[in-house]
Amino acid sequence: MESARVVTCRAPINIAVIKYWGKRDEKLILPVNSSLSATLHIDHLCTTTSIAASQHFKEDKLWLNGKEQSLDNPRVKTCLQEIRKRVRKRRLSESGDDSSTKEWLSWKLHICSENNFPTAAGLASSAAGYACLVASLAEVYGITGNMSDIARQGSGSACRSMYGGFVEWLDGKLSCGSDSIAQQVVDQDYWPEMRILILVVSDQKKHTSSTAGMQTTVETSPLLQHRMTLIPARMETMRTAIRNRDFQSFAELTMQDSNQMHAVCLDTFPPISYMNDTSRAIVQMVHDYNSYKGETKAGYTFDAGPNAVLFVLDENVQEMLSLVNYSFPPQDTDGEKFIRGLDSHIEDIPQDMKAAMKRDPSPGSLKYVIHTKVGPGPQTVADQELCLLDQDGFPKNLAS
Amino acid sequence: MESARVVTCRAPINIAVIKYWGKRDEKLILPVNSSLSATLHIDHLCTTTSIAASQHFKEDKLWLNGKEQSLDNPRVKTCLQEIRKRVRKRRLSESGDDSSTKEWLSWKLHICSENNFPTAAGLASSAAGYACLVASLAEVYGITGNMSDIARQGSGSACRSMYGGFVEWLDGKLSCGSDSIAQQVVDQDYWPEMRILILVVSDQKKHTSSTAGMQTTVETSPLLQHRMTLIPARMETMRTAIRNRDFQSFAELTMQDSNQMHAVCLDTFPPISYMNDTSRAIVQMVHDYNSYKGETKAGYTFDAGPNAVLFVLDENVQEMLSLVNYSFPPQDTDGEKFIRGLDSHIEDIPQDMKAAMKRDPSPGSLKYVIHTKVGPGPQTVADQELCLLDQDGFPKNLAS
Repeated sequence: MESARVVTCRAPINIAVIKYWGKRDEKLILPVNSSLSATLHIDHLCTTTSIAASQHFKEDKLWLNGKEQSLDNPRVKTCLQEIRKRVRKRRLSESGDDSSTKEWLSWKLHICSENNFPTAAGLASSAAGYACLVASLAEVYGITGNMSDIARQGSGSACRSMYGGFVEWLDGKLSCGSDSIAQQVVDQDYWPEMRILILVVSDQKKHTSSTAGMQTTVETSPLLQHRMTLIPARMETMRTAIRNRDFQSFAELTMQDSNQMHAVCLDTFPPISYMNDTSRAIVQMVHDYNSYKGETKAGYTFDAGPNAVLFVLDENVQEMLSLVNYSFPPQDTDGEKFIRGLDSHIEDIPQDMKAAMKRDPSPGSLKYVIHTKVGPGPQTVADQELCLLDQDGFPKNLAS
Repeated sequence: MESARVVTCRAPINIAVIKYWGKRDEKLILPVNSSLSATLHIDHLCTTTSIAASQHFKEDKLWLNGKEQSLDNPRVKTCLQEIRKRVRKRRLSESGDDSSTKEWLSWKLHICSENNFPTAAGLASSAAGYACLVASLAEVYGITGNMSDIARQGSGSACRSMYGGFVEWLDGKLSCGSDSIAQQVVDQDYWPEMRILILVVSDQKKHTSSTAGMQTTVETSPLLQHRMTLIPARMETMRTAIRNRDFQSFAELTMQDSNQMHAVCLDTFPPISYMNDTSRAIVQMVHDYNSYKGETKAGYTFDAGPNAVLFVLDENVQEMLSLVNYSFPPQDTDGEKFIRGLDSHIEDIPQDMKAAMKRDPSPGSLKYVIHTKVGPGPQTVADQELCLLDQDGFPKNLAS
């Protein structure tokens, strides 16, 4: 492919420990409160996006997981517009001459994006998707800097996927939203002992989308108004816990804030319930485990679905995986591994730990577990083998 | 049995539509907020209590559901003490002479109490139980007046079972609790169209007791503090809805307040979940039904367990029972009726109503349904056949 520029990036998903739930501006995607998340390692969960820009392309094109998509999607359009606007601004301020950039910016794009995890797992992919789109566009156009406000306009939590480690998304004060950006709290190497377990629940019913859900919450939940006033102190406590590598404070506030987000969902009218009986059995298991250990050695958090994300330190990860395997014995794994991701070892748990569990084991309630850790932000992929587009700028893999 | 006085009373359970959740005084059982309930008809759900007072009895004795109980229970003791205190006060103010009353008050009591519903149903029996104890004691000692503050000290919500119809329990301002009493809003004939369906959920796991649960909520839930500020307006809206027989306002606020109580339970740490997947399926069914009808024709409320209580007007009760029967088809009823209580008729629901239901039917999720209505407060039972004590003052029926 001549006269073309091709880039491939990978971007991570993130899991909030202080939750984003509610927008104050639907169009600009400005949140009612600040939030804070851990970026998950792209080796285990990521979106890969390849973009080719060429003067020979007749129109912008987009493929997601092997299927061509309309580019009428207003959020994708906004990201494209905003990044082109920023490119023009940067070039203009650097050279004072916009003409060459203008021509180059008019080249059409072929964008191809894939997740390395099945959609049916119920893992929110839009954060990684929009972060990857914006990171790839920035790479294509050769600009750098904080692009999180653009990713934010694709999907709110996508702004947090623009950085690795632990990341905060500031609510901001301006109505234009330019101060509602993500920034890194600490990088991915700051707390190397932290491990993350994603418990993928088997029964993935169709849920209220988070966009629709949080809109109804803002409109109807009296308790959300109060939650908003609690967040600044929670953000400060969480930042401090992370900077001090204080696992107990970190895990307890993580659990409390997850519970509170789901509490305001329930206070919404009609009420929204993302957690199901398996989610609640996981909550009970974690509290029983912490009681057994005599201190908080594990925390949980839940997003807009029944899957749990657990935080444990590496010294407890084998024990926790063994407990998960005991509490939710795998069934019908179709020969696939029950525990995926980082190297894992499970064994029988001791009798007194079994006795400390208030619920009986629930076979088959989990589909699988992903064992991962905190990871970096979006990465450029140099290996051309991993490019999703062929030499003509079309997807190598199309869904049949 | 000579030289004895014997009385038998029946008292109702009640279901709160503005929820009581949290005490500001554990000993006196003073609530953090006012609450409002419907009294359920004693024909379908009640406690029966017989009390015999005799100079020949050697000690106070108590039997619950055929089993003798210790009278060391501090709440039972308090009720006995408080009612004797009140009797003395009344007699003294009437005759100016306390001597004859004093002797009579020293007679020992045999108290025998039974519920007409199985404990395994997970229906809170303590409200009816303490209301019946206090009503029977008042009858034995021949005193009248508002005894709800005494019942309150047995079990908070018992004070609301001292009246029929719709009843409010005022939070009160005094630290002694004497202004934290129940009073009738309207009597049981005021809104005769109101029907109440109790959906008894099959899977009755052991739950956090409401006493322990609300204590942890008061200690740990930041959102409870805000809920308390919302209650005065909710009480007023609810009173007005009932006085105006405004079903839509009544049902919507009932649902919202139930959801909010369960939201603060979830905001408690560790979190408390009383509703399970069946409870949530019932919530969805009611909202789907209201959408189908184009207006709010049914409401739900949940207490400290998974059972649902639905409110519908009589014109919709057959349709709702048919929908419940469709959504939760009975299984393993052991020849017992699936729908109990008032005369009920079910039929096939129309195809478009089935299509409006977002969840598939869930066979066997409900044990049975009780169809009832708003009823009177505690009643004296004249029929000696119904007395639970024999002529020697001992239970006619003992548990084997």
